[in-house]
Amino acid sequence: MGRWKANARERLEQAALELLLERGYERATVAEITERAGLTKRTFFRHFADKREVLFSGQEALYKLFVGAIVGAPASATAIDAIGAALEAASAVFPPERRELARQRQAIIAGNTELQEREMLKRASLAAAMVGALRERGVTDPTASLAAELGGLAFRTAYARWVDPANHQEFAELARQALHELKTATSEIA
Amino acid sequence: MGRWKANARERLEQAALELLLERGYERATVAEITERAGLTKRTFFRHFADKREVLFSGQEALYKLFVGAIVGAPASATAIDAIGAALEAASAVFPPERRELARQRQAIIAGNTELQEREMLKRASLAAAMVGALRERGVTDPTASLAAELGGLAFRTAYARWVDPANHQEFAELARQALHELKTATSEIA
Repeated sequence: MGRWKANARERLEQAALELLLERGYERATVAEITERAGLTKRTFFRHFADKREVLFSGQEALYKLFVGAIVGAPASATAIDAIGAALEAASAVFPPERRELARQRQAIIAGNTELQEREMLKRASLAAAMVGALRERGVTDPTASLAAELGGLAFRTAYARWVDPANHQEFAELARQALHELKTATSEIA
Repeated sequence: MGRWKANARERLEQAALELLLERGYERATVAEITERAGLTKRTFFRHFADKREVLFSGQEALYKLFVGAIVGAPASATAIDAIGAALEAASAVFPPERRELARQRQAIIAGNTELQEREMLKRASLAAAMVGALRERGVTDPTASLAAELGGLAFRTAYARWVDPANHQEFAELARQALHELKTATSEIA
């Protein structure tokens, strides 16, 4: 089994992306996704709570990278430094070869309100994870919430540029740039 | 008709809050809500796209207050000043007599993931409305997005304190306080 089972998640994700692009989110069924992936519905629901979740497969890994980097940043790091380290760590899950898949995924989400809702919930979960990690560093509110919002905004800005077909920069570079722009704006706004 | 029809929205909202608290969000049906309100399902769906929307009845009015205040702030106002004016204007829809209803509503939303997702979508819509209004004032990105995030965070902080049974301050006061705290944190973080 090993290898075959190990990549069930990825195969389901890939099959789902293909099918949802072909048939639209509403029309494609879980049965069709699992058939294309050569797996069973049972396997699907062992990995994903519902049809929507297959498009948010990498979220847990992303949270872990964010939290790990924030908690693990040097004691001398400010809240924003820790957020910068988190964005740097997150770039591991956005290698150039994932860019086309990410574009397809965004196109599917953009076309469906239910998926947008799920995305917003994930966004809030990521912000909450960042706040929790910052608190572990001794950062109190409202600074923890503020830094998490800045981190979320920098992340979304970088991600939007990364999936833009006109852009060819790497994710880590885009993230550094977005955070830098936000820091500048922050120092001017207060 | 006049008065009777005019407050159909409010009657549906009130009936929904009662029923959803009694029976839980999943179990209460639109038919039961309309029956309690003495109205028809057709009237319900003229006012709300789905069962969830009845809990977000005031959102459009809220967006309008935010946008109106941001666009209408004096030319000399900074982005943050405009956000402050928006929070001040928003307090019109959070009078003391709405506080108990707001608490009930939050309790229902807290118990259901679908409702939380809808709330997150509304949160994103409010942020987008703020960004749009700030751009109309000539505020460019990333400052517009940053100010909108600060405004959203101040709003959520104030709202959470306002629905907290231990709190007795007025919404406008809580909003000013939350924005002030965030401004201080912002000047320290950059």
